[in-house]
Amino acid sequence: MKEEDINFIPAKDVFYNPAMRLCRSISSIAVGAIDEKIDIIDAFCASGIRGIRYAKENKNVGKISFVDLSKNAISSAKKNAKSNKLKAEFCHNNISKAAFELQTDFLEIDPFGTPAPYLVDAFRYFNIKKSAYLSVTATDVAVLCGGKTQACMKNYHSKPLNNEFTHETGLRIMLKKIAETAAEFNMGIEPLISFSDKHYLKSILSVKRSADLAFDSLKKLGYVSYCPKCGYRSSSIFPQNCIHCKTQTEFAGPLWLGDLHNKNFLVKMQKLNSKRNYSDKNEISKMLSLMVGEINLPPYYYNIHALCKIQALNPVPQMDVLLKNLIDSGFPAVRTHFSSVSIKTSAPYETILGTIESSKI
Amino acid sequence: MKEEDINFIPAKDVFYNPAMRLCRSISSIAVGAIDEKIDIIDAFCASGIRGIRYAKENKNVGKISFVDLSKNAISSAKKNAKSNKLKAEFCHNNISKAAFELQTDFLEIDPFGTPAPYLVDAFRYFNIKKSAYLSVTATDVAVLCGGKTQACMKNYHSKPLNNEFTHETGLRIMLKKIAETAAEFNMGIEPLISFSDKHYLKSILSVKRSADLAFDSLKKLGYVSYCPKCGYRSSSIFPQNCIHCKTQTEFAGPLWLGDLHNKNFLVKMQKLNSKRNYSDKNEISKMLSLMVGEINLPPYYYNIHALCKIQALNPVPQMDVLLKNLIDSGFPAVRTHFSSVSIKTSAPYETILGTIESSKI
Repeated sequence: MKEEDINFIPAKDVFYNPAMRLCRSISSIAVGAIDEKIDIIDAFCASGIRGIRYAKENKNVGKISFVDLSKNAISSAKKNAKSNKLKAEFCHNNISKAAFELQTDFLEIDPFGTPAPYLVDAFRYFNIKKSAYLSVTATDVAVLCGGKTQACMKNYHSKPLNNEFTHETGLRIMLKKIAETAAEFNMGIEPLISFSDKHYLKSILSVKRSADLAFDSLKKLGYVSYCPKCGYRSSSIFPQNCIHCKTQTEFAGPLWLGDLHNKNFLVKMQKLNSKRNYSDKNEISKMLSLMVGEINLPPYYYNIHALCKIQALNPVPQMDVLLKNLIDSGFPAVRTHFSSVSIKTSAPYETILGTIESSKI
Repeated sequence: MKEEDINFIPAKDVFYNPAMRLCRSISSIAVGAIDEKIDIIDAFCASGIRGIRYAKENKNVGKISFVDLSKNAISSAKKNAKSNKLKAEFCHNNISKAAFELQTDFLEIDPFGTPAPYLVDAFRYFNIKKSAYLSVTATDVAVLCGGKTQACMKNYHSKPLNNEFTHETGLRIMLKKIAETAAEFNMGIEPLISFSDKHYLKSILSVKRSADLAFDSLKKLGYVSYCPKCGYRSSSIFPQNCIHCKTQTEFAGPLWLGDLHNKNFLVKMQKLNSKRNYSDKNEISKMLSLMVGEINLPPYYYNIHALCKIQALNPVPQMDVLLKNLIDSGFPAVRTHFSSVSIKTSAPYETILGTIESSKI
């Protein structure tokens, strides 16, 4: 098989998901956008395709190591590394136990389902580091976003909310858990890029050891409140009531209220993407542009169709007209990578509703 | 040296704290009060005195194992077990790594400082168990109770409150962290006995595997609010304002709002204590009686001196008179093991203040 320029053989009983190509491409660009030489560990490596791409596609990758509990996976990763002329280290072990033997600058964890049980282990890979990078994929989207409240509470200790902006909520719940775990290791987090795509949520973060930074990260945790009656939403340290129609809100959290991305990092990624000829080049370019726009805006978005329905506003205005009118009113307003029919804006709720009214065709 | 009936030699560089005799005696009675045959692991065993006492003083202890990262500790525990004719297993390992090799019914963790970083490891010792017992000691009292907000947030993800009932708050923050970790392993918690003494906080808990029980435990988490102006306090799912003087409250949490002890278990312990001739027999008896009284009462107590001071009520009434008058008014009211000048009661705040007035000498 081939993924971008890498030929590899997916082995029997070793998981390979072609649908994750875009995810691996974005992640590989992120690796390349890191301004330093880094050693990488691809834990849960399976066929090794992700780590092999990281190492072959980027000049700044030093030592690359593959960890997996499955013998077949390690054997498959070894073969694929060899056929790609990649010198690598291999560790057939439980990723939790291996954490006591290995240290790294960049850890990739993409387990089956929730990453929650592996986060403490993950930070142990950074024990002797002052700073490092953590790349986390969560495929338990039904738990983080789908309103499986009980499972989300158990794994993440946060209440999810199954509404129109649940994918952002789910991603932010995952980031909360990472921030809390990092803090136990005296580390602060800064998400460099975070996104929701298909059936997974992903974030690549910079983590830095400092009691103050750890505390700063925890200060960015809070709740998002949502009024099921009128569609009003807000974020705050604890849930708030609806100030629009005074109804009792629903809430999600605690979750990460800070930014999902670092702007300079995204700009570097855009430049790198334009130089590479990935199959998903155009889609990646579009996603990165949308993510740049999301920075500094509130931790939720507005699905225009859902909003018009709940407020009985008809017809639904065109997105571009609505965005232009919001911007003309003096408020930032952008499309979001989370949903093609949604916008992010810092305009007050009344202003958004008024602008919808005045943006009708 | 001798502790109760156990002769042992504290080795050089191996920690032994004579002041923890009472803690070990209470814990050994708790082990005896468990109605089943249990295997025990004494992790962080040091000289082994705690585990040796558990095994020698109780008939229901099956296999006993000692774990420590220090060679000297393991060697010392071996010698002490041998001189006490105790057959035991020894594991010279990091307790986190040993969790992948060992399983147990009862795990004792009494690390240096905070137990927070070891809780995930602790639950791994129960991986193949449907139910088990966890005994946790925290000696980071300054963090849990002393208002070191930043360190408490980092280690426990909860805000502490350095006021007159901070020892209960600290203990409940520790229990919250245990409940959250247990939930990740699909386990619910039930504290059997929990206490604050000298410079440590301790709880011995029953843990049972069940998604519903795990969720039930999480539903018992919340906040305690305290009004620094008038002394009013309350507990709830999120912090509340003062309903007495309407001032902005201070808050602690999230923390465990459930019971600290199981009544039947304490009664069994009382019976066992009366049969044993521990040096601290009378003190233990008194503590157990106080703990029985604490069950079902709010998750905070009232220091009568502090209360009279903040409310300018003089003179301070006698504790016994105040308690009798509260009970005569129809409210449960008891002394607490947390503080000799404090009471626990479910009486409304206005009633407490009124009863103080009417209880003056």
